[in-house]
Amino acid sequence: MLLLHLSDVDEASWADKLRAELAPYPVVRRGDAFDPSDVRYIFVWKPKPDAFDGLNGLKAVLSLGAGVDALLRHPKLPDAPIVRFVDDDLSQRMSDYVVAHVTMHHRLYTRFRADQKAKRWSQLYPPAASETTVGIMGMGVLGQDAAKRLLPLGFTLRSWSRTPKTIGGVEGFAGTESFDRFLAGTDILVNLLPLTPETSGILNYETFSKLRRDKLDGGPAIVNAARGGHQREADIVRALGDGTLGAASLDVFETEPLPESSPLWAIENCYITPHIAAISNEKSGVAYFSRIIRAHEAGEPLINVVDRDRGY
Amino acid sequence: MLLLHLSDVDEASWADKLRAELAPYPVVRRGDAFDPSDVRYIFVWKPKPDAFDGLNGLKAVLSLGAGVDALLRHPKLPDAPIVRFVDDDLSQRMSDYVVAHVTMHHRLYTRFRADQKAKRWSQLYPPAASETTVGIMGMGVLGQDAAKRLLPLGFTLRSWSRTPKTIGGVEGFAGTESFDRFLAGTDILVNLLPLTPETSGILNYETFSKLRRDKLDGGPAIVNAARGGHQREADIVRALGDGTLGAASLDVFETEPLPESSPLWAIENCYITPHIAAISNEKSGVAYFSRIIRAHEAGEPLINVVDRDRGY
Repeated sequence: MLLLHLSDVDEASWADKLRAELAPYPVVRRGDAFDPSDVRYIFVWKPKPDAFDGLNGLKAVLSLGAGVDALLRHPKLPDAPIVRFVDDDLSQRMSDYVVAHVTMHHRLYTRFRADQKAKRWSQLYPPAASETTVGIMGMGVLGQDAAKRLLPLGFTLRSWSRTPKTIGGVEGFAGTESFDRFLAGTDILVNLLPLTPETSGILNYETFSKLRRDKLDGGPAIVNAARGGHQREADIVRALGDGTLGAASLDVFETEPLPESSPLWAIENCYITPHIAAISNEKSGVAYFSRIIRAHEAGEPLINVVDRDRGY
Repeated sequence: MLLLHLSDVDEASWADKLRAELAPYPVVRRGDAFDPSDVRYIFVWKPKPDAFDGLNGLKAVLSLGAGVDALLRHPKLPDAPIVRFVDDDLSQRMSDYVVAHVTMHHRLYTRFRADQKAKRWSQLYPPAASETTVGIMGMGVLGQDAAKRLLPLGFTLRSWSRTPKTIGGVEGFAGTESFDRFLAGTDILVNLLPLTPETSGILNYETFSKLRRDKLDGGPAIVNAARGGHQREADIVRALGDGTLGAASLDVFETEPLPESSPLWAIENCYITPHIAAISNEKSGVAYFSRIIRAHEAGEPLINVVDRDRGY
């Protein structure tokens, strides 16, 4: 039996489609009548505190999100393996966001918008993409997809990750000891890291002050498409104000929705989107998790299982 | 002898570098003492009315610009072949601009900026790139380069040109009779046409009203990176105001610099840059034109010669 426990999304619609795909395998929702000990799989998004109560026959926890940081903090998370969502469509949408904001900063959007407001015709030629280095933090599925999209645009690319990753055309840096060297050659910093105790708050003033300053007019830029927990918003406010950063694109925040009292809203060179960089697509999610359940019921091993020590 | 006649750029610097590259072939500037009938090549940018006076031994006119529309209107333009500048670096920079503005509109920048100003957290998921159609007008060197950059981003692409062009992954439309069909499936319209009597004013209200309206929140967008003569600015003001267009990115204008009195400056969903999409790079320009002169002096035919009837 598959139990759905999806908050903030259309659970009924997911249930209909998973039932159609998995039939005759039983699919139930929280409000339905069922015996908790019959549940083999639970499919979760933002699970409530009692989500896992009584599920003593669980074979796997299926996570609708690609990031499992919040799930791993659930106080009653069972020992069953956690399968996270890995999806080409999600990667594509995330890269859409990343490319749009990287290219916007590369083309000095902030400066030209200020000139427009002042009705000022002031010619300045942005560097070519090849003269601009984009540094991607995180080289998992999302980081690799972003690199794959940015390379044909001609950007110079470097990456930073926990363990060394070799991607053609991308200069790889790995581990804490190479972080400063990575930053020192980066004009536009893109965060696609998983949120773990090690990466929490990594987007802070000290990090910003180590970025390359002499390439992009106005200063280096950051793009955070991962998690609000990666960023210190007070540091971003300070860095945007004193010129340590030229611009910041933020899709995620320490508290979401971003409170009306946040100073970020009113900062001209801060570009806010309401956590819409990418959404898990229902159609591909139904296909993905149905395939995983059918394969596992047929005796095959689970794929994309989270390493709890690593945190992703 | 090569004569330089370059306005609005650093002619002295070009002269130094061309002399170094072409020596011992003589290179002169307007103010130098020389016999006009000795001039075999004239290298021009924004030539004055008397630019060609007395040049009765001319073998070729070399144009620093990729577009030759203004040059072709010169009242005393001699009959000599015109060679235009075709340069990978220029194409790269032009594509940088095009990609930055296409992706900005695809990711609904105008809407999220308005939400930010209102401190409004309102989630809306932009379509995936694959669900968005970019229509490129003009499939010369620049249009093809833009297509090459946009394809790996996942966009659906179509092109419109005078004569049929076959580019892998791009649905081609050609000629006046297919223009409406081309527009009807286009969400973001990119103009990279040469400016000719046929394409003058092609970005007008009627054109805008034929674009696809139901895909991009806020309406379709245009990006003009070609010539101000392609656009009817009064029509753009009207279309941006009544919702026929959701947004417009303009790098070129009917009059440049754009007059302070233009209403375009103050329109929130009009994105103005001061004709900086791409600049002819000195280093590659020197290499390109030196190669052409040396080859032609050695008896080889000229390349990238303008077809005067066609206008480009």
